[in-house]
Amino acid sequence: MAEPLKNTFFVSSRAAQQLIDITGQVQATVDRSGIKNGVCFLFLPHTTAALTLNENWDPAVPADILHTLEHQTAPSSAAHRHQEGNSPAHVRSSLLGASQFLLIEDGRLLLGSWQGVFLAEFDGPRERRVIVKVMEG
Amino acid sequence: MAEPLKNTFFVSSRAAQQLIDITGQVQATVDRSGIKNGVCFLFLPHTTAALTLNENWDPAVPADILHTLEHQTAPSSAAHRHQEGNSPAHVRSSLLGASQFLLIEDGRLLLGSWQGVFLAEFDGPRERRVIVKVMEG
Amino acid sequence: MAEPLKNTFFVSSRAAQQLIDITGQVQATVDRSGIKNGVCFLFLPHTTAALTLNENWDPAVPADILHTLEHQTAPSSAAHRHQEGNSPAHVRSSLLGASQFLLIEDGRLLLGSWQGVFLAEFDGPRERRVIVKVMEG
Repeated sequence: MAEPLKNTFFVSSRAAQQLIDITGQVQATVDRSGIKNGVCFLFLPHTTAALTLNENWDPAVPADILHTLEHQTAPSSAAHRHQEGNSPAHVRSSLLGASQFLLIEDGRLLLGSWQGVFLAEFDGPRERRVIVKVMEG
Repeated sequence: MAEPLKNTFFVSSRAAQQLIDITGQVQATVDRSGIKNGVCFLFLPHTTAALTLNENWDPAVPADILHTLEHQTAPSSAAHRHQEGNSPAHVRSSLLGASQFLLIEDGRLLLGSWQGVFLAEFDGPRERRVIVKVMEG
Repeated sequence: MAEPLKNTFFVSSRAAQQLIDITGQVQATVDRSGIKNGVCFLFLPHTTAALTLNENWDPAVPADILHTLEHQTAPSSAAHRHQEGNSPAHVRSSLLGASQFLLIEDGRLLLGSWQGVFLAEFDGPRERRVIVKVMEG
């Protein structure tokens, strides 16, 4: 059995709000693990960003997702007590979730034709760390 | 050790928005795997649908969930740029998530008394594919 | 290989809406498992509560999250059909999710400096059960 691999890669966001396609970096980590069948666990050690699956073909889709999240979480901001002013980013992190798993078959991530995994930045720009563990099974 | 099983089943939605209880199909897949203790990973290779846990006793609960999601994500739609017009479906997919894991004990899914797993259709009617991997442990 | 451990602990909420930091209880369960590297799966057998990761340093953050969720899901309540009157709690459970996984390295949960795992109560006060499975790998 190949050694299960925990690994880390970094992603730099360039805007306050941004969905960044990280599918290629996740696949590269799976490739390095040598594991052909199993589960790939992704975890963000951050609380104002998230990981999410969605369409990575038309860039209008991630743009519309960010736009909708902004409309959803902004109206209540006036009453926020957290002094850093980034409570909407914390809310969006919990709504989308800071972790994600993907299935692996024959060494490839099992994804739909237009589906990718995104790091969702809600309080950028900054550098984010993605922790990856690949488990055989 | 029993062979870990990856399997697939199909679900046909009959409406644009629908929550479909798939608990029975997931349990049947676990049964076929022969695995008595472990984790069951569910993954949707789709970006306008989701998987979610909720009450499967009173059908008013899934109806109210769909109604609330519609109210939440509709108001910002006017500004959407994705030309297919289904951006709210993409947003809802990310909000609920396209994957879900369940725990298995003595061959049974560990669920609350009135808890089930649903496929959430947001851009139906159409046929959806659910990928299942059962891992022993 | 250490025996994979499934365990349960209880959490008592004291309000209708509350985010309760359960990081210590999860770490204690991992400690008891003796497993040094792997994945910790958390599962709530409840449909009006959730599990979520967020900042556990400034108590204003969980307060702002609850406040925002209330604003998001309340306006559509008038049309709800579920007779128990707690449909917003069911919606919030699906939005945040009733399950969560955490990675384990050298016996410690891999978390950001100000990141913790919370049980999100949306229909309290009541006692909630958290099911834990620790898998080596």
